[in-house]
Amino acid sequence: MKKYDKLVKNAAGRMVPTIVNGEEHIPFKGIGKHIPTGRKHAPHIASCANYPADGNKTVASLKEALIKAGLKDGMTISTHHHFRNGDVISNQIFDIAAELGVKNLRWYPSASFPSQAGLIKYLEDGTINRIEGSMNGALGRFCSEGKMQGLGVLRSHGGRYQAVQDGEVQIDIAVIAAPTADAFGNANGVDGDAACGLLGFALADSQYADKVIVVTDNLVPFPCIPWQIHGNYVDYTVVVDQVGIPEKIISGTTQITKSPDRLMIAEMTAKFCDQAGIVKDGFSYQAGAGGTALSIGIYFAEMLKERKMKARFIRAGSNKYPVQMLEDGLVDYILDG
Amino acid sequence: MKKYDKLVKNAAGRMVPTIVNGEEHIPFKGIGKHIPTGRKHAPHIASCANYPADGNKTVASLKEALIKAGLKDGMTISTHHHFRNGDVISNQIFDIAAELGVKNLRWYPSASFPSQAGLIKYLEDGTINRIEGSMNGALGRFCSEGKMQGLGVLRSHGGRYQAVQDGEVQIDIAVIAAPTADAFGNANGVDGDAACGLLGFALADSQYADKVIVVTDNLVPFPCIPWQIHGNYVDYTVVVDQVGIPEKIISGTTQITKSPDRLMIAEMTAKFCDQAGIVKDGFSYQAGAGGTALSIGIYFAEMLKERKMKARFIRAGSNKYPVQMLEDGLVDYILDG
Repeated sequence: MKKYDKLVKNAAGRMVPTIVNGEEHIPFKGIGKHIPTGRKHAPHIASCANYPADGNKTVASLKEALIKAGLKDGMTISTHHHFRNGDVISNQIFDIAAELGVKNLRWYPSASFPSQAGLIKYLEDGTINRIEGSMNGALGRFCSEGKMQGLGVLRSHGGRYQAVQDGEVQIDIAVIAAPTADAFGNANGVDGDAACGLLGFALADSQYADKVIVVTDNLVPFPCIPWQIHGNYVDYTVVVDQVGIPEKIISGTTQITKSPDRLMIAEMTAKFCDQAGIVKDGFSYQAGAGGTALSIGIYFAEMLKERKMKARFIRAGSNKYPVQMLEDGLVDYILDG
Repeated sequence: MKKYDKLVKNAAGRMVPTIVNGEEHIPFKGIGKHIPTGRKHAPHIASCANYPADGNKTVASLKEALIKAGLKDGMTISTHHHFRNGDVISNQIFDIAAELGVKNLRWYPSASFPSQAGLIKYLEDGTINRIEGSMNGALGRFCSEGKMQGLGVLRSHGGRYQAVQDGEVQIDIAVIAAPTADAFGNANGVDGDAACGLLGFALADSQYADKVIVVTDNLVPFPCIPWQIHGNYVDYTVVVDQVGIPEKIISGTTQITKSPDRLMIAEMTAKFCDQAGIVKDGFSYQAGAGGTALSIGIYFAEMLKERKMKARFIRAGSNKYPVQMLEDGLVDYILDG
């Protein structure tokens, strides 16, 4: 299979392929120009009759869960990146796939991190055909050098949700590592040793994947409250020793930059927004993760405090900096992805 | 169209129709014997391009919203019953439909109440073909007497959700009366003059209906938090003077029975459960609404208090009696429908 085919010029004037990894893609037509039609992706109907009557969906290991979920060649396997560089489960999934001789998988993380550099050997030996998501560190370099067998597709977080919802990417197995869960599969990210905050990037996966596996190191009695991931969508639960390394969850792009250049860019950006009249009582902003972007929030916070004003919401990476603003009464709400 | 056709004996030994209102139905096969196949209902893909860029989906009136949603003959219109006998919006919907000359609608409430007895005239003149849900009071009598043009279908709350999720009942327009909402359509039932608690019975409707209208008498600035109904699913929002009559929300089946006979049935039921060994630390129960069932909870509460025990959860109508138990530390969680 060719990585891509049929180049055309898109509305931004760039030559882009219309066939990527054998699938049709629609070139950018301009803002608001493309109106998708058709229906959302419809997952298979599940039946209580196919689950244990007591609601306990626990199986002995991640390997058993993957086998029961029907892991086979060519499948799409999704993971979330809420543990950032502290993720340990993604590597295990593909270790198991390689051990089972499964080939040609599409790995569909919401983002990939340096801690997953060990997966390069599986990209080389054909266990993984390609990554669709974001690729950082050694994995990013590997992709940029054109070494993946399939073509990497970088998807925005919102675009990823849309692709799943609309059936453009059909996830065969979603593996959702959860800091806390019950045996029915209800799960959250706020309790447990590997508490990472929220699990929002796994929501679309839980709703639309063909099979859903929740992996946790903190099993609580039913019901796990809050249940950001609903057990009704979950097929198997697995208890392991560790789902994430706490000290690595806050890492890289979730810290304020120390670079004087980047701090200056952030300060100038905040001042520009102010001069443009955007920083006012009840305004809102998104900063996401990323050292420079996060730092802009610091300057916004200073302006708000000085002027006794309050933002209505931050649509953000929900890390400690927006939380500090919430606690200081500088913003009403943080809206998570 | 015949109301029903093709009677067969089901697994409970009852003669039941397999064709109801022209649609095929599956007779009860026995517990766990029917395993549905196929895929869930897939609503149409929505596009931002079809909504106002500022996210303000407010239209001037419920009538305008229904017209924009394409109200026409034969459609299925859903409502929820969280206001119980204090609902005022359902009547308005069909007043508008009658005024527009629309006929043959299927009304799909999660339950109907005496306050909606005014709809009998629309069942008579053919504006409404039939009710599918539960029918109480005068509406119940009208159905029982066989006066509806179509055949009434009584659906359990869980069965209603399943029918929507699996596409057996496709809702054309869901009208969700909400005690609080923002202009984008995020809504909850906990704030506002007509606060009714939760809006869980409208969840399936919001996710699967073709068009969703949120009606509120308490519009708040975006974001309406908590947002039990997600604005992402909502097409139009309407602001009215009143969505529900507060003093009628607690009514009928959400009050403890005063009947000595029923109280005795409740007490004996609670004692039976106790003798059967079911009432123990960490147990759970569902009482729903209904005076007798609610009263069982009172006896459970007494037993728990006396024995210094705690239930794990109540799967219930989330009214003041389970809430009192929660506040008294007799139960860890209330799980809502």
